[in-house]
Amino acid sequence: MPQAAPYKIALCQLPVTADKHGNIARARARIDAAAATGAKLVVLPEIWNCPYAMETMRSYAEDIDGGRSPSVSMLSEVAAARKITIVGGSVPEMASGQLFNTCCVVGPDGEIKAKHRKLHLFGIDIPGDITFRESDTFTAGQEPTVVDTDVGRIGIGICHDIRFPELAMLYRSRGAHLICYPSAFNMSTGQLLWDLMQKSRAVDNQLFVATCSPARDPNSQSDFVAWGNSSLIGPFGEVLAAAGHEDATVIGEIDLSLIEAVRESLPLETQGRGDLCRLVDVQRECSS
Amino acid sequence: MPQAAPYKIALCQLPVTADKHGNIARARARIDAAAATGAKLVVLPEIWNCPYAMETMRSYAEDIDGGRSPSVSMLSEVAAARKITIVGGSVPEMASGQLFNTCCVVGPDGEIKAKHRKLHLFGIDIPGDITFRESDTFTAGQEPTVVDTDVGRIGIGICHDIRFPELAMLYRSRGAHLICYPSAFNMSTGQLLWDLMQKSRAVDNQLFVATCSPARDPNSQSDFVAWGNSSLIGPFGEVLAAAGHEDATVIGEIDLSLIEAVRESLPLETQGRGDLCRLVDVQRECSS
Repeated sequence: MPQAAPYKIALCQLPVTADKHGNIARARARIDAAAATGAKLVVLPEIWNCPYAMETMRSYAEDIDGGRSPSVSMLSEVAAARKITIVGGSVPEMASGQLFNTCCVVGPDGEIKAKHRKLHLFGIDIPGDITFRESDTFTAGQEPTVVDTDVGRIGIGICHDIRFPELAMLYRSRGAHLICYPSAFNMSTGQLLWDLMQKSRAVDNQLFVATCSPARDPNSQSDFVAWGNSSLIGPFGEVLAAAGHEDATVIGEIDLSLIEAVRESLPLETQGRGDLCRLVDVQRECSS
Repeated sequence: MPQAAPYKIALCQLPVTADKHGNIARARARIDAAAATGAKLVVLPEIWNCPYAMETMRSYAEDIDGGRSPSVSMLSEVAAARKITIVGGSVPEMASGQLFNTCCVVGPDGEIKAKHRKLHLFGIDIPGDITFRESDTFTAGQEPTVVDTDVGRIGIGICHDIRFPELAMLYRSRGAHLICYPSAFNMSTGQLLWDLMQKSRAVDNQLFVATCSPARDPNSQSDFVAWGNSSLIGPFGEVLAAAGHEDATVIGEIDLSLIEAVRESLPLETQGRGDLCRLVDVQRECSS
């Protein structure tokens, strides 16, 4: 297990505006400041370089694979300059004519270590009230993402990905120590589900969970208002650090040795009944 | 879907003493009173006919299959007299020389419709602090339990069974509308996990969850003090009814049509990525 000593994680709960260059400059400054306080891992929110608005999303998209991504280039520069790991929230990615909601994980050498494209696109249909489908705009990713970094093995999910317990279980089975969920819950799902989902993923899988939301803009003219409340949850469900809804950087501490302690004291994995129900990691089992 | 109209469910948060006959008489009275208020489904706590104490458990055990079970006979009599369904919490069951922690579901005709033997036995080991293994006393069951009743399709779990998301997912896949978890969480796991577990099982699977605990005895001389807080949770994670920690019967309302409404508005099942990770119901898939 890398980084045996406890380390600091920073959750940058950024305000987001329509000014992409401003968003990038602000994110750079916040990451830099977090690193200056000693953070070894910095997490950004879902869709932090532009508003979470489907109608304008495409105009902000970047070509990450083609190296034409000012947002990800900035992450690489700061990560290398500060020798930190960044879970780069998410930005709209254009690839082969398709739009993805994509998180890049950047290492202390500035290289992209992993790229997670949101697997579960949010969609809700309450006739006469609200109908909304991310799938009208985005294409879903095709790969779960677990990446070995200097600060542990990290599983990545984006927002609605957190609603699916089987993804977190799969990450646990692949040895993740921490799952990072850059997210942008709205006010109603935030109230009902935000705390519940992150705590239960942590407790069920006995690992750390970090969420990072955009800051709430109470004066927002858009339909979408972010819940905020970015948090770090420990492997027994304890809240280790949490923001309110305002523009803030939350610093928490991750002690990976807690995972083993919790699992030894309460060995859920060996207590489980794989003889009755078990999760299949389809890509792993089909490729082995 | 049976019982299309909303119906009342009663959670009998019973005090439990060392006097088995007294426990049975009290349970009978409470079930009877709940039925008198119109409850169609009554749920009892885990181990309600004797103290939750491993050293005396065997002396209270009953032979359910052999028909020598005063506790279950009482349930049958009240269910038949009142024409209700009872999820009979759990009692220690002796069968073939083995001790099980067993829940009987009794129908309005007084017949036992299903018998669930606790699948996941609780065990914790914190050296120098606490070491406790139910498996030193109990044998684990071998069958998940889903039963069709007049009040819907019910999945059964007992206490530690709730800690395993895969069991609730399996019940959902078998079409359960409601999962009942007779439980006896202690004060520390109660504080940390009680609300979290029941809400997340409900929300993740978009179904009703009912928990029923013994009442807390703050003057208990035993190591075990029950958390209480028996609750009914709706398919969007909403608390529909909840007790405090005292001796009480909680009445809630179950409207099964809510399940379909929630699933239609937010179709988690179709949004899931069975192409990447999926749950295998081992007994079903191996027998088909």
